[in-house]
Amino acid sequence: MSPAAPAAPAGGGPRRGRGRPRRADVAELPATRDRILAAAREVFAERGYDKTSIREIARLADVNPALVHHYYGTKERIFAAAVAAAAAPATAGLPVAQQFPPEETGLAFTRLFFGVWENPATRGPLLALVRSAVNNETAAGIFRGFVTSQLLSRVTGGLDLPDAELRAELAAAQLVGTVMLRYVMRFEPLAGADAEELIRRLAPVVQHHLTGHGLHPPH
Amino acid sequence: MSPAAPAAPAGGGPRRGRGRPRRADVAELPATRDRILAAAREVFAERGYDKTSIREIARLADVNPALVHHYYGTKERIFAAAVAAAAAPATAGLPVAQQFPPEETGLAFTRLFFGVWENPATRGPLLALVRSAVNNETAAGIFRGFVTSQLLSRVTGGLDLPDAELRAELAAAQLVGTVMLRYVMRFEPLAGADAEELIRRLAPVVQHHLTGHGLHPPH
Repeated sequence: MSPAAPAAPAGGGPRRGRGRPRRADVAELPATRDRILAAAREVFAERGYDKTSIREIARLADVNPALVHHYYGTKERIFAAAVAAAAAPATAGLPVAQQFPPEETGLAFTRLFFGVWENPATRGPLLALVRSAVNNETAAGIFRGFVTSQLLSRVTGGLDLPDAELRAELAAAQLVGTVMLRYVMRFEPLAGADAEELIRRLAPVVQHHLTGHGLHPPH
Repeated sequence: MSPAAPAAPAGGGPRRGRGRPRRADVAELPATRDRILAAAREVFAERGYDKTSIREIARLADVNPALVHHYYGTKERIFAAAVAAAAAPATAGLPVAQQFPPEETGLAFTRLFFGVWENPATRGPLLALVRSAVNNETAAGIFRGFVTSQLLSRVTGGLDLPDAELRAELAAAQLVGTVMLRYVMRFEPLAGADAEELIRRLAPVVQHHLTGHGLHPPH
């Protein structure tokens, strides 16, 4: 089913023929571009990276496939745009680590992470993208590039430590693994646990990975 | 390509017709059963749970599909058998938590976990099963049941704590997330890091989740 078309010019023209670009494509560039991206997100989420085609995205957006290529180039590039759009609620709210006293970084990031994943509106698209990245090498590369440049770099920016990147990734591993067991594979009691309780338990671990404070090595 | 057939009776009989069970199916029950399981593991690993059919497993094992049903029942049940077989190297070596002084549990389980995942012979099949579980609800349920009954229960058995299950799952989340970022999505520097270095960093976190010792909450 097509999403609602953007506002058409008053009066309208003759119905366009199949495959013929309509004037509106020129008049409404941002709306068309957004509609293509919305369609792409929907198709990637439903079918995964492997089974999605530019043709199918074009069909759902009700545009000529050439227009999808024109705006977004390859399937890789439109997937990257879909990843960025799906993660926008997370990245928009993402602070840089310098904004906190060092000992609050773990709690701040853990709380933000759960905020995004506990919200069904943002969880759904993110889950679909994670599934694509798990199953396709190209999609994994795009996902990795995005997470590294947009998310991990904000964490490592505040850490004045030579192993900041590895620290950020081990912290991310704790949170990503929690996503896998809680939302994807639904292990109990983890899947049904209160989010605040999980934040309380995980924030010190994230803190430990990032700053190395608070944990004693085993004897 | 079919795997090598088990030793045929000397002299042999006439070539069997297509779809006709051969006498060897009766004479060599354990070998046939094993061959079907080996074929199932190969097909599940290559194509994932969704795209695997009993027919394809039968074709690779060079038996009648009815024989696959006879030994293993449904696709769900042969997948469960494949999961158990792929995880056997891990479960065989898995200690119960009581065998260690409490403060060594984290290190023991972390080391065992990396031992299984660093070995390409065990990593390949496990990765394939994780991919299936991420993409299919039925496969996820089977995977979950196996991990809970065979792995997590061994950990929680040694913890005399009311929240032992949640603790074990949060510890597992740290390790599963590391698998996702290191072996599946290949984030650097995590993917290239020395396994001993990762064990050194992660064991205290696993220990903390399991016993609650060694970590201070953030202020």
